Amino acid sequence: MHVKEIDAFWRAANYLSVGQIYLLDNPLLKEPLRPEHVKPRLLGHWGTTPGLNFCFAHLNRVIVERGQDMIYIAGPGHGGPAAVAHAWLEGTYSEIYPDVAMNAEGMRRLFRQFSFPGGIPSHVAPETPGSIHEGGELGYALAHAYGAAFDNPDLVVACVVGDGEAETGPLAASWHSNKFIDPRRDGIVLPILHLNGYKIAGPTVLARIPEVELIKLFEGYGYRPHIVSGDDPAVMHETMIRTLDLVFEQIAEIKSGLAGARPPMIVLRTPKGWTGPREVDGKPVEGTWRSHQVPLSQVRDDAVHLAMLEDWMRSYRPDELFDAEGRPTVTVTEAAPRGTRRMSANPHANGGELLRPLTLPDFRAYAVQVKSPATESSEPTRVLGGFLRDVIAANPENFRLMGPDETASNRLSAVFEVTDRAWDAEILKTDEHLAPDGRVMEVLSEHLCQGWLEGYLLTGRHGLFNCYEAFIHIVDAMFNQHAKWLESAKNIPWRRPIASLNYLLSSHVWRQDHNGFSHQDPGFLDVVMNKKSSIVRVYLPPDANTLLSTADHCLRSRDYVNVVVAGKQPVLDLFSMREAIAHCARGAGILTWASTDGGEDPDVVLACAGDVPTLETLAAAAILREHLPDLRVRVVNVVDLMRLQPASEHPHGMSDAEFDTLFTSDKPIIFNFHGYPWLIHRLTYRRNGHGNIHVRGYKEEGTTTTPFDMAMLNDIDRFHLVMDVIDRVPHLMSRAAHLRQEMADERLRARIYTREHGDDPAFIRDWVWPY
Amino acid sequence: MHVKEIDAFWRAANYLSVGQIYLLDNPLLKEPLRPEHVKPRLLGHWGTTPGLNFCFAHLNRVIVERGQDMIYIAGPGHGGPAAVAHAWLEGTYSEIYPDVAMNAEGMRRLFRQFSFPGGIPSHVAPETPGSIHEGGELGYALAHAYGAAFDNPDLVVACVVGDGEAETGPLAASWHSNKFIDPRRDGIVLPILHLNGYKIAGPTVLARIPEVELIKLFEGYGYRPHIVSGDDPAVMHETMIRTLDLVFEQIAEIKSGLAGARPPMIVLRTPKGWTGPREVDGKPVEGTWRSHQVPLSQVRDDAVHLAMLEDWMRSYRPDELFDAEGRPTVTVTEAAPRGTRRMSANPHANGGELLRPLTLPDFRAYAVQVKSPATESSEPTRVLGGFLRDVIAANPENFRLMGPDETASNRLSAVFEVTDRAWDAEILKTDEHLAPDGRVMEVLSEHLCQGWLEGYLLTGRHGLFNCYEAFIHIVDAMFNQHAKWLESAKNIPWRRPIASLNYLLSSHVWRQDHNGFSHQDPGFLDVVMNKKSSIVRVYLPPDANTLLSTADHCLRSRDYVNVVVAGKQPVLDLFSMREAIAHCARGAGILTWASTDGGEDPDVVLACAGDVPTLETLAAAAILREHLPDLRVRVVNVVDLMRLQPASEHPHGMSDAEFDTLFTSDKPIIFNFHGYPWLIHRLTYRRNGHGNIHVRGYKEEGTTTTPFDMAMLNDIDRFHLVMDVIDRVPHLMSRAAHLRQEMADERLRARIYTREHGDDPAFIRDWVWPY
Repeated sequence: MHVKEIDAFWRAANYLSVGQIYLLDNPLLKEPLRPEHVKPRLLGHWGTTPGLNFCFAHLNRVIVERGQDMIYIAGPGHGGPAAVAHAWLEGTYSEIYPDVAMNAEGMRRLFRQFSFPGGIPSHVAPETPGSIHEGGELGYALAHAYGAAFDNPDLVVACVVGDGEAETGPLAASWHSNKFIDPRRDGIVLPILHLNGYKIAGPTVLARIPEVELIKLFEGYGYRPHIVSGDDPAVMHETMIRTLDLVFEQIAEIKSGLAGARPPMIVLRTPKGWTGPREVDGKPVEGTWRSHQVPLSQVRDDAVHLAMLEDWMRSYRPDELFDAEGRPTVTVTEAAPRGTRRMSANPHANGGELLRPLTLPDFRAYAVQVKSPATESSEPTRVLGGFLRDVIAANPENFRLMGPDETASNRLSAVFEVTDRAWDAEILKTDEHLAPDGRVMEVLSEHLCQGWLEGYLLTGRHGLFNCYEAFIHIVDAMFNQHAKWLESAKNIPWRRPIASLNYLLSSHVWRQDHNGFSHQDPGFLDVVMNKKSSIVRVYLPPDANTLLSTADHCLRSRDYVNVVVAGKQPVLDLFSMREAIAHCARGAGILTWASTDGGEDPDVVLACAGDVPTLETLAAAAILREHLPDLRVRVVNVVDLMRLQPASEHPHGMSDAEFDTLFTSDKPIIFNFHGYPWLIHRLTYRRNGHGNIHVRGYKEEGTTTTPFDMAMLNDIDRFHLVMDVIDRVPHLMSRAAHLRQEMADERLRARIYTREHGDDPAFIRDWVWPY
Repeated sequence: MHVKEIDAFWRAANYLSVGQIYLLDNPLLKEPLRPEHVKPRLLGHWGTTPGLNFCFAHLNRVIVERGQDMIYIAGPGHGGPAAVAHAWLEGTYSEIYPDVAMNAEGMRRLFRQFSFPGGIPSHVAPETPGSIHEGGELGYALAHAYGAAFDNPDLVVACVVGDGEAETGPLAASWHSNKFIDPRRDGIVLPILHLNGYKIAGPTVLARIPEVELIKLFEGYGYRPHIVSGDDPAVMHETMIRTLDLVFEQIAEIKSGLAGARPPMIVLRTPKGWTGPREVDGKPVEGTWRSHQVPLSQVRDDAVHLAMLEDWMRSYRPDELFDAEGRPTVTVTEAAPRGTRRMSANPHANGGELLRPLTLPDFRAYAVQVKSPATESSEPTRVLGGFLRDVIAANPENFRLMGPDETASNRLSAVFEVTDRAWDAEILKTDEHLAPDGRVMEVLSEHLCQGWLEGYLLTGRHGLFNCYEAFIHIVDAMFNQHAKWLESAKNIPWRRPIASLNYLLSSHVWRQDHNGFSHQDPGFLDVVMNKKSSIVRVYLPPDANTLLSTADHCLRSRDYVNVVVAGKQPVLDLFSMREAIAHCARGAGILTWASTDGGEDPDVVLACAGDVPTLETLAAAAILREHLPDLRVRVVNVVDLMRLQPASEHPHGMSDAEFDTLFTSDKPIIFNFHGYPWLIHRLTYRRNGHGNIHVRGYKEEGTTTTPFDMAMLNDIDRFHLVMDVIDRVPHLMSRAAHLRQEMADERLRARIYTREHGDDPAFIRDWVWPY
């Protein structure tokens, strides 16, 4: 494949890109362009597209010449026409979507469907073959690329980074991912920074700093930068060929184990909207921000614009590129890769095809022994750590544990018995558990953890992201984008199911002992619940055994986002393993041993979700049992939050009959919740008994204080729950006024004691152990 | 101030820091340390603290010698003991909190209160004098620093960046802020990258790359890096003095206008937990991650640890630092800055003290003329642009407009009639509206926009952040942290009110014509509503005049986060300016001209919030008026979302009586909402009529399609609303079955037409203009 073929492929891709943005009909320009051939509304992004096409065409040469396994990530994914054009030229598109055949009619459909009602999105999207990266929100291309490269030693992930995207925080941090990659065991990421100079409306930072600074920046990031700069296609083809040959020699050096070799990256500097209209209505367009979307806008109404569009399209010499039937000519396709070497058909970009189920040890083997409920305690995440250790050991190339430097803090340290933190920078004698091939990815960037994991999952592997609960909000927007990917991919038959994105949120709102108010936010659950019920799952296991059962379930699931909130501090063991499995399977159930309703109609329901709220609920039930032994109290614990929704809203939802049986439809329900209280109302507002539900939860009160003080500050403590019961059970006040006063006094005493004695360990023990 | 004084201040601050983490009593070590002097639970972070103290002590010398106006941002703000120690040593702490006097008893209280119930947070927090930066979530220190420096030409903002924080995305992007600062008109940011080598449990990236790469990295970022590295205090003091002298000479050069001079930054490499215990229980601690929190843990129970703690504290030679009464000695304080030159008392760090109200033009002058409602249309944000243009012109050093390259896209371009985009990098001839002193800050990083604006507001200025609605989720976590700052600051009497943080969210979910599904997410409102009602406000003005009135209101407010969602596409003008003001003041009201209930009991209420849902609601009302003229329909528009909440939950909340008067307590309410539908349920679940509220909103259906197709995909379209009315008004079905079928047919026709004709402009006009 030489310049001639590369250039032909490039021109063909450019032609198809312009056609997608503009044309409804007359795809091959067999007749002069008329207004009715043009879409009534022009939606799409031209500016980045010729650069994406240029890189793709040149990388194809490398694939063919070296037999290289390669995938392509288009950071400027709003250049959707480019990726679609590549897939069509390579034949993949027609294989997947037979309606869009490789002929004139297929080309007409290809053009028409783009950014058109009932058609395809304007961005690189799940619908686009060869992509693992939706080009909507910017910032994550390079993190996705590294995620894809992990544990794929023979793969090269070419990643075009737009200079707009390069201004984002997540992207700026992603360059340092090269310190977390093992040249022996992982693939290579080849970043191509595409400096086309402009964002939507202004210049970009990296395009406007002196080149000497630009080079230093990337050397500082630990790369060997290569500059490819210009606007004359003939010269640029030669330069790019030379550069890629050098780059792949350097890659070969690294793969051969050359110590200290820095990975190459390319800076590609071309005009924005390259090969498009130079000037429109007297204003420069090519090489400026004006070519970001549609360089010619009034094409239907303006004969001059229409003529310019036709000239522009004919400038690619379509007659050389497509035969009379609209098929790409031999020049365009002969030298291109075949089969799964085509980047549009590489199975890594449809990771479900490569997915191997995890080899999971029997989680029951890690159970804590529970002779009777609520007598001993465990640290749930520490128990889980043992299970994860063996998951890692059993799946050495198929599972990674991500976290922003919190694996030990979240008490998952058992994993370090079998593996290390991935680290490919300097290691000192005093260091512990650092190695290039470590399975634990720790970087103080939630963005990188999330982006790496997404890239890893989308290419068919498995993982878990452990994070402080409050700071998972840092990736709210990334979660949204991944959730949208899953929502869309579910409806695309050729996208095979991938492993779920599993979050373990620990160091949660109720136990921020070292950190206080800034670390208290359980609101990620609210963000998660906005996405489609077909993909989101939320679990709040209250003890170690329910956490084990939940984790096993999540690691086996596909195409979901599973959010598991679990504490790292000691909590009471409530369920034997057998009971835990049953409880998790039900998702919500009565704790009979803590209830006094004898299985019959209760006077009041104490519901709870989350470990600390459950502890306080159990303590409140104990107080009630002691002081009001004839009050029929039912304690209900909810593990699977989605069970609360109506069955019509979520596949896990209970029927109204089930809900009423569990919670009653007419009795007061005091619901002690881990998160912001209104989430429970949102989930239950259609239930018969909703008017009787009173929810306690985090109401944004907190500081650095004791755990029990935190509970009291937010009224989720046992004493307040007892007061709530007395206030809400009809006629109870008359005979329990004294108890109510006693509870109020206890709260006051506890607050004063706390303020005087800090958290005296004896005091802590006293309130943790109600049984 | 020479080495002796600097060292004394440093030792005193270190002593006070250790005391805060460990001691309940015996603050001056006048007697041997006993277990009961030590806190029962040790919470805090030692590791970063001596470095923070070192920088502070050295910067004080510069302040005194040069009369420099300077503030200090502690990126590793979990080193709270440091900032508190500085403020106490400088006298500020006792001035603000007289209980914590500058004597032995005051020192005892200082120690006891730290990280103690009823005391102060363990981080640098709003409670800490001299800070504008809560040290909770990492990543924002440098963006805050730049925000503080804007329009403060004489100020130096010293910003310590931890090497953990440096791994985050927002921080990595923040280094490039130097391209957005005007050396003439803005102050100088002096970044001090503190490489102490470790995060919580592992090494940091920047501490483990070769020094040559480190230097290139910062030269690439456009700085002049200076390395200060070592662990011998005597040598380090000399090096730091020499370096700071050089650095401030370079700063003087820049301020004197030397073209192309790059700003200096310092790399400070010291051991983590410097001057703390070298080794504990046979393991190295100083200089390792083990000193991150408390280097000695079992101090109450372990006599060896207790003795080590006493040795450690005595190593600072407290007798030289504090007199018999516990006051700092002359050596410590004599040479330190005085008055408002003290960094702990600099008014820039309590911005409300410097706040000047905006000079606001009369927003009524920008009104669009509305002769009768819903006959003409305007682009609301374009109208707002005229107002903002004049706000900028009238407040040349007191207001900035932030946005990720979307100011023009969001149709606020009128601002460029009076100002430019801030840009201090290369400018080409073809560029438009770039200048070093531009008031519009555009960078493709929502994190930077938010961080800069926070820093600007916290130092007493005003601003507005305009952003695509979906991508504001990128700063969810930053919003959370700023909201928590405001929540805390409200309760701190000496913190003066600051200008509100104003968001303008445009290019919203319903009009993502160019971009589709990835750009559709109205869920920021759900995140916002989780914060305390005392600080959050959400507005959905449905037309241009209500947007003007809302914007004026928000720009005058203090200590809030105001979220305004407004469209940039043409929408019907509904309110004259006078009506708009009244409607916004009420926050929600009946559109009598669109209603057919004659001011009496309606049969059904059509409620709406947001521009597109309002348009569809009005169209539905028109259809009903035509086809069912005797049906009494009331149309209610909600501008101020908080009005829906009970008065007990939010200060804007309506009483139940008001709510019932507006919405009825017994009639069907079809609520057409801009965002995810359950938010309306969450706000109204306690209302009498809640059981009758049926909410339509965005339910995560979308792609690149026409605006009306988007409405149909999510069932918020006029036809579906009419169907909802027929389904819900008792007995209506019997006589309106035909209309219902007609509506269903219309939907089908519209969908087919859309798919065939894309968005034919005539079709668009047809559905946009129901009147």
